[in-house]
Amino acid sequence: MFESVMVVGRGRLGSAVVERLRERGVRVREDSADLVVLCVPDSAISEVASEIEMGPWIAHMSGATPLRALEPHVDRFGVHPLQTFTRRRGPEQLDGAWAAVTAEAEEARARGFWLAETLGLQPFELADEQRALYHAGAAVASNYLVTLFRAASRLLDEAGAPPEALVPLMQRVIENDYELTGPIERGDWTTVDAHLAAIRAHAPDLEPMYRTLADLTAAVAAR
Amino acid sequence: MFESVMVVGRGRLGSAVVERLRERGVRVREDSADLVVLCVPDSAISEVASEIEMGPWIAHMSGATPLRALEPHVDRFGVHPLQTFTRRRGPEQLDGAWAAVTAEAEEARARGFWLAETLGLQPFELADEQRALYHAGAAVASNYLVTLFRAASRLLDEAGAPPEALVPLMQRVIENDYELTGPIERGDWTTVDAHLAAIRAHAPDLEPMYRTLADLTAAVAAR
Repeated sequence: MFESVMVVGRGRLGSAVVERLRERGVRVREDSADLVVLCVPDSAISEVASEIEMGPWIAHMSGATPLRALEPHVDRFGVHPLQTFTRRRGPEQLDGAWAAVTAEAEEARARGFWLAETLGLQPFELADEQRALYHAGAAVASNYLVTLFRAASRLLDEAGAPPEALVPLMQRVIENDYELTGPIERGDWTTVDAHLAAIRAHAPDLEPMYRTLADLTAAVAAR
Repeated sequence: MFESVMVVGRGRLGSAVVERLRERGVRVREDSADLVVLCVPDSAISEVASEIEMGPWIAHMSGATPLRALEPHVDRFGVHPLQTFTRRRGPEQLDGAWAAVTAEAEEARARGFWLAETLGLQPFELADEQRALYHAGAAVASNYLVTLFRAASRLLDEAGAPPEALVPLMQRVIENDYELTGPIERGDWTTVDAHLAAIRAHAPDLEPMYRTLADLTAAVAAR
């Protein structure tokens, strides 16, 4: 569908994309490519797009950015890999992840799916106006997972327990299809009160987080 | 150290413990055992313990319950597997998990470590008065992880995206040692504001969670 691709940006994502395209036999060129893929920070997409000469297809890989950021280009689409990337790993980071493809026309959608599948991603369609909501969900699931681990680690550390003991626990929660267990699931509010007293005594800044999530967890348990 | 064990309670944990003890060649008896292990709900520990005849060692497997709940027994300890259990799996659920061992004397500590290791758990010592704080951390890491996934799933669902696409993302966050990425890590408050506007429009009850965790995440990013 595209024989050559120019990738702008060599950050965590851009580096993985370039390597994966080469593995799949797609030529990666520095100019005159059939497709230009922007792997630049969200805030730079609009300016970089406006500097690309009209002609080739253009795509961005941002989660929250609407397609109009690619103006004046009209042959355009977005492919957002629903994954977190690190510099310590290569293109295998793309394997198994899903990708949100946003397009305004059937041909653009097909080309977006082609790029996602060529990269090893499982594509699904996402409406342009839903990108912020979708991306908020992605951030809650991934970034706040880090925050949850850091908060829990502090509590274990304060209690004299090794925070790394939380890792097999969190992995198993996911393996068990996020089955809810624990005091709130059991309706054991005595234990919840004991948690709150301990948090107030040792890490009072975590109390709002504990309470807010307890409320939401109670709603989950009630279903 | 113990040749026979009586396990009281056959819930998710009790069932796995009984099977594992048998696998390891420890006799599981219904009475006259060297050790009685209570795998009953936290709220029942005190009453069940008071009904056990004096003589054998006694232990509970609760996270938050202090050892005095085992009164009048004094040959006692606690072993809490830092893991979530489901009825769909067997004793292999114990493998790779850590366990908090609480004891008031050296001999009791050694016996607690023996039980943990016999079950396939990696023991660490936990002071009795720190159990509530420790258990709060365990609940934050595991129960709230479920809540985070449900909240993020709702946002994706509202956006027309498949919530199961979050699973490889969350697994990778753990594999990447909880490395923080995303808008808050980049200081991209424009994207955070877009998230908040979308959440207010489509799932306003999730706004306090988003905000509380955004504040904590910003503190993590600043470190």
